Amino acid sequence: MDARAYIEDHREEFLSSLKAWLEIPSISADPEHHGDVRRSARWLADHLTATGFPTVEVWETPGLPAVFAEWPAADPGAPTVLVYGHHDVQPVDPVEAWRTEPFVPTEIGTSLYARGASDDKGQVLFHALGVRAALAASGADAPPVTVKLLVEGEEESGSVHFAELLRDRRDRLDCDVAVISDTTMWAADTPSMCVGMRGVTDVEISLYGPTMDLHSGSFGGAVPNPLKAMSDLLSGLHDADHRVAVPGFYDGVVEAGPEERALIAELPFDEREWLRTAASTATWGEAGYSTLERVWLRPTAEINGMWGGHTGAGGKTIVPRSAHAKVSFRLVPGQEPLRVQDRVRAYVEANTPAGLRAELEFGGPGVRACASDLSSAAVKAARAAMERAFGTRVLYTREGGSGPEADIAEALGAPLVFLAVGLDEDRIHAPNEKVEVPLLLKGAESAAYLWAGLAAQM
Amino acid sequence: MDARAYIEDHREEFLSSLKAWLEIPSISADPEHHGDVRRSARWLADHLTATGFPTVEVWETPGLPAVFAEWPAADPGAPTVLVYGHHDVQPVDPVEAWRTEPFVPTEIGTSLYARGASDDKGQVLFHALGVRAALAASGADAPPVTVKLLVEGEEESGSVHFAELLRDRRDRLDCDVAVISDTTMWAADTPSMCVGMRGVTDVEISLYGPTMDLHSGSFGGAVPNPLKAMSDLLSGLHDADHRVAVPGFYDGVVEAGPEERALIAELPFDEREWLRTAASTATWGEAGYSTLERVWLRPTAEINGMWGGHTGAGGKTIVPRSAHAKVSFRLVPGQEPLRVQDRVRAYVEANTPAGLRAELEFGGPGVRACASDLSSAAVKAARAAMERAFGTRVLYTREGGSGPEADIAEALGAPLVFLAVGLDEDRIHAPNEKVEVPLLLKGAESAAYLWAGLAAQM
Repeated sequence: MDARAYIEDHREEFLSSLKAWLEIPSISADPEHHGDVRRSARWLADHLTATGFPTVEVWETPGLPAVFAEWPAADPGAPTVLVYGHHDVQPVDPVEAWRTEPFVPTEIGTSLYARGASDDKGQVLFHALGVRAALAASGADAPPVTVKLLVEGEEESGSVHFAELLRDRRDRLDCDVAVISDTTMWAADTPSMCVGMRGVTDVEISLYGPTMDLHSGSFGGAVPNPLKAMSDLLSGLHDADHRVAVPGFYDGVVEAGPEERALIAELPFDEREWLRTAASTATWGEAGYSTLERVWLRPTAEINGMWGGHTGAGGKTIVPRSAHAKVSFRLVPGQEPLRVQDRVRAYVEANTPAGLRAELEFGGPGVRACASDLSSAAVKAARAAMERAFGTRVLYTREGGSGPEADIAEALGAPLVFLAVGLDEDRIHAPNEKVEVPLLLKGAESAAYLWAGLAAQM
Repeated sequence: MDARAYIEDHREEFLSSLKAWLEIPSISADPEHHGDVRRSARWLADHLTATGFPTVEVWETPGLPAVFAEWPAADPGAPTVLVYGHHDVQPVDPVEAWRTEPFVPTEIGTSLYARGASDDKGQVLFHALGVRAALAASGADAPPVTVKLLVEGEEESGSVHFAELLRDRRDRLDCDVAVISDTTMWAADTPSMCVGMRGVTDVEISLYGPTMDLHSGSFGGAVPNPLKAMSDLLSGLHDADHRVAVPGFYDGVVEAGPEERALIAELPFDEREWLRTAASTATWGEAGYSTLERVWLRPTAEINGMWGGHTGAGGKTIVPRSAHAKVSFRLVPGQEPLRVQDRVRAYVEANTPAGLRAELEFGGPGVRACASDLSSAAVKAARAAMERAFGTRVLYTREGGSGPEADIAEALGAPLVFLAVGLDEDRIHAPNEKVEVPLLLKGAESAAYLWAGLAAQM
């Protein structure tokens, strides 16, 4: 029996399991639901055991537990794949905006509505179905690659103990490729593979001038004004082409290649629709790049907040004593967050006028960008697997936001592949989250093909 | 008997009167003291009657009363002088910072400590002494010019009814020159005459972008950021020489002449001391001008406040929906506040990128700058009078701040002369206000000479 037929045959069983899991309100950000997160971990462990994984463990952390499972390949020389996902979910507020109960999974047409349906329980669970389908297709009783699952319980509350978990369990997590099933594809009729995510680092900049607010009648125009200097500083973050003008900012940037840019250009992108989502009336950005390239491929400097001087009602003719700004930098592969921080510090120091004092406070070490190596066997195998499952060409996308994926890759010393079937329209952090059931089944089928493909190619 | 001898002979009587007036806590900003402001007006009216003014009236307003007095010249062809001052005083908080009771006038050395001693009761009262000294010197029973006094009761609470008073009493206020006795001179040993004050207009600028804060991961670098655009706008307010770069801003500016600049350069200016007062460590400003010229002679653009986006603790990676700034412009003679507002509006509109919407809210019609005509007979007579009284050369100063003086000049249709003997060190709006008694006597003597000089020269 081929993988697709197996999956079709087990559709109802899969859905029934998924619904049972979705009924558990595993909201990690809410201490009242921590018992539910533990219940969710046990449910998953039981399910993976029933699926046939010989090793299934609930890994405690100082916070909430992760689930680990391993199913060794028959061939000890076969590659090892580690699938990453999470079993905790977002809060449901505002609950009155839901048209169905968030924890009463409800099928409407092809959609299954529930908190966690897309992010991330549906996408974790298709792997259990996928591995059974691979076995059914091969007739073997072990998968063609060693399959490990690591399903975190604190992803929606900051993954606070995850780095420690990766470090402590390093020996158990050894793998040749890491598969991330926690993103989206372009559209139901345009399957795609995420091949990268931007990194980020952020800073609060303060400029201090006179030790008190000054009367602008007596002193205005004759001492440096911190808000003027801050405006100059922030205005100077970009050049006329809207490139980031911090010297050295682009050092080390690994540019996206022509193949990836060509595949991005093939995506059916509707800029008017995008602007509606952006609640904006015009695009803006770095010269020479499309809107999608600007949010996926290009590093940015963004002013997130700014304040200083008199911000209340009415006028107050002062030279303010200080100015403050919060700025974040989205990063792309090749940019080291700590090196970017050094460059930003140097830029601020070089552009602080005499008479003012600058202070910078970075929000931690930052997050590195990550990208898949498009020429790698893993990416090729994953794309081929998806193309076979979907029966159509698979394009590339990236994500403009930032996640811990680069750290997972770094901790495991393994290349990343994103295999996911969520959609942007799944409303993953909003009311009325849903997932498309047919896409989950395609995800399971893709996974089944991927294990075989990886065994053949790596 | 010459004016100086008369004044010396009446020193104690003058001081005793001034102390009696200073005991009245005429704080116009505090409704609890409005009765005291009325008492202060009556005290002054009685004092001017006793001085010999044939006409003395308390002019009621919808708020607090002003005092008007008039002493016609014997010669009906003699010029008319109107002296402006005010009889209300600043609040005394923080009262615990006073070393003497604010309303128990106390002589320490040459200083007389009390709220209002310098601002403005001392400087109003020396005119009563001055007119008596002029009579003593001439032996006549009427002054050589018609002397009018207009002493406001709401100057320290915004002069809210003063424009109306000027309009309603226009016929009684007719004059050939207006003498303002409410400013300062350079130093006790460097007498000087203020010859101008800057004007001001202020605006709140808002830029609106997306209709909600956006996730910078999804949209950063691809839609216009209002804080970025605001930084560009504000940074562009000045060119590399720190001149205001709003097109047309300098239209109509009447530059200070070489004589005035030369006299300003003669002032014994200690920049280190000035920086200490400015609580600053470096000067800044328009190329080609000294610090004093920057605060007195040059118009400015000053950012008074700015805010937008996330201003709380920690980071928040957003493209903010809006940005706001408060900017004030100090103006010099020849700049019309309303025309400057038009220029600022045009500058903001020309520099608002596509996708953003600008709103401007001006803080009223603004205040025009004022300046004395240095070639006028009135200024020459005033300077000569002060030089005779002080026995030394009198230099020119201006004030960087803004007051209603230009409106007084405009309402009366008369040129302005500033005759004042306050000092910057008098702490006029702070605890421990004082005045130098010898300077008040020099003020009286200067006034006495001025009336004679004006009669001869005009």
